[in-house]
Amino acid sequence: MIQRTKLAAAVTIGMLALAGIALADTRSEIEARGNQWTERFGAQDAAGIAALYTEDAQMLPPQSGPVTGRTAIQQYWQDAMGEGGQSVKFEVLEVHGTGDLVAEVGGYVVRGAGGQELDRGKYIVLWKKSGGEWQLFRDIWNSSLVPDPAPAQ
Amino acid sequence: MIQRTKLAAAVTIGMLALAGIALADTRSEIEARGNQWTERFGAQDAAGIAALYTEDAQMLPPQSGPVTGRTAIQQYWQDAMGEGGQSVKFEVLEVHGTGDLVAEVGGYVVRGAGGQELDRGKYIVLWKKSGGEWQLFRDIWNSSLVPDPAPAQ
Repeated sequence: MIQRTKLAAAVTIGMLALAGIALADTRSEIEARGNQWTERFGAQDAAGIAALYTEDAQMLPPQSGPVTGRTAIQQYWQDAMGEGGQSVKFEVLEVHGTGDLVAEVGGYVVRGAGGQELDRGKYIVLWKKSGGEWQLFRDIWNSSLVPDPAPAQ
Repeated sequence: MIQRTKLAAAVTIGMLALAGIALADTRSEIEARGNQWTERFGAQDAAGIAALYTEDAQMLPPQSGPVTGRTAIQQYWQDAMGEGGQSVKFEVLEVHGTGDLVAEVGGYVVRGAGGQELDRGKYIVLWKKSGGEWQLFRDIWNSSLVPDPAPAQ
């Protein structure tokens, strides 16, 4: 009985360890995808950003209704780039969940051409694994600044 | 071999059906918790609202830094109530994920004493199962209005 309990404990610890490794892998994969996002923003490549979202993705931007689907998402970021944002930096704070859907909690900073800070805030992204790659599925954020900077559209 | 394939298919369908039932149950449990939230807001019971969050919960409100822990969360809603909001209504749009952490996507409307709309927007809440009950663990939202109504604090 003790042996069985020990075995069960070992299996449980093993599963938790595997889950921990899986989550660490997921986190670094998501960080890499976030880096792609910021590179594409820096290159003013709105279509490239939209391609990082699932086909059925939905963004929930401040001062706007929901923005649904890649075409609308591309247009949203195209408009946002027209407002002077030259770089976006993300800080991944937390990654929660397992399986094919995880939630990321993070912070962002937007800077203009001269490096001046235009906005800073926080976000939650729900990521979905699609075709072996993590893609943004739901994306909500808000500004920490008062007043909230003008909306992108 | 065909039998084994059929069995595997039946098991898979059965597991998906169970997961579907579990998610439907989770959704109705989360809707019930959301109703408690709105009832307590209607009763101007900020401590009661804070008790619906995990001890280590974090809110990410617009035009504010993160608000961490029940004491700060209670203060935040106390201040928000002081700004004239008399009722909050939630609409649960989606519940994603399984296990002890799920993500809810929804919409909200805040009304004043005369029933006038003060704010409307959308949110993502990460819910955590703690002591058998779903509690708010991470909570982010933003206003759909332009300009964003004044922050609560």
